[in-house]
Amino acid sequence: MKQSFGRHTIAYPLPVFVIGTYDHSGRPNAMVAAWGGICSSDPPSIAVAVRPTRYTYRNLMEKRVFTISIPSETYMAEADYFGIASGEENDKFAKTGLTPVRSTLVDAPFIKEFPVVLECRVTNKLDIRAHILFIGEILDVKIDELVLGADGKPDIAKIRPLGFDAVRSEYYTMGPVLGKAFSSGRKYQK
Amino acid sequence: MKQSFGRHTIAYPLPVFVIGTYDHSGRPNAMVAAWGGICSSDPPSIAVAVRPTRYTYRNLMEKRVFTISIPSETYMAEADYFGIASGEENDKFAKTGLTPVRSTLVDAPFIKEFPVVLECRVTNKLDIRAHILFIGEILDVKIDELVLGADGKPDIAKIRPLGFDAVRSEYYTMGPVLGKAFSSGRKYQK
Repeated sequence: MKQSFGRHTIAYPLPVFVIGTYDHSGRPNAMVAAWGGICSSDPPSIAVAVRPTRYTYRNLMEKRVFTISIPSETYMAEADYFGIASGEENDKFAKTGLTPVRSTLVDAPFIKEFPVVLECRVTNKLDIRAHILFIGEILDVKIDELVLGADGKPDIAKIRPLGFDAVRSEYYTMGPVLGKAFSSGRKYQK
Repeated sequence: MKQSFGRHTIAYPLPVFVIGTYDHSGRPNAMVAAWGGICSSDPPSIAVAVRPTRYTYRNLMEKRVFTISIPSETYMAEADYFGIASGEENDKFAKTGLTPVRSTLVDAPFIKEFPVVLECRVTNKLDIRAHILFIGEILDVKIDELVLGADGKPDIAKIRPLGFDAVRSEYYTMGPVLGKAFSSGRKYQK
């Protein structure tokens, strides 16, 4: 039997994306977003939802560019802080000791210590009442050499990204690979 | 050192959402979407990206409602099949043996065997070239009693959802909970 939980933002998995922006004075800011995901293959695009009250919202509206830095589980507390504090009153980089690096592609900072970085240009936005959904064209993805597998591809077992549980307000890790996509379902093609 | 991977749809984690729709004749269809995510808290909303060539696209345009069923890892092969085959030529439910259940809230089917179900009404859509992003207001979330914890809340260790690795075309599982959100980062608030 299924139990009704009502109108609720429940889904699994949800990401822990850290949005990097500069403000008008060039000060780097980072906020965490669990509302978002890839939203088109071409142009490769990612969507992130930001409340209009957030400092990052103003930066996004001004600069129209951002980065997404994806933390490994080692940086759970730092990522969590990025979701608690406001960049208006706090220098989140000074507080956490993490390093903002200026992207060479967009006028936005990414987090040096995080293994996966997307550099994005806002191509569209959509007002969904509580949140504004920003669509970013992914101009480049940069990944730490340390988290690449022997085949040169990023290895999730080395990246060790986090997921966000919106019901329990918890972070969880990723487990092992289970199988191949576009392959394990072929047995039903008869 | 970070290595550049170019314009690419890479992010971690990515979900395995199964979109349920009826076609014009009332035949249930299911397709898998890894492009998507929660996109607003109020109204609680989820975004899913669908190519205009997909059978589901036509159903979405006609019915303006859909469900998201989230598979547990037990159903990896079935979910994978939903991403391989087209609902135009195949009765995906007959092929996999999974059970379409008519939602009482929206004119769309969900998958009985999957532990988490969202029932959604399309409130907006956005053309992002290769994909159309459908925004769905979440009218209800239904969760199997078998995957609830002792506190009555859904337990990800029982749901055992899948993630999708877009680079390696693999499915991965979720690991254990690592810590509390809005909490572990408080140590930097000083």
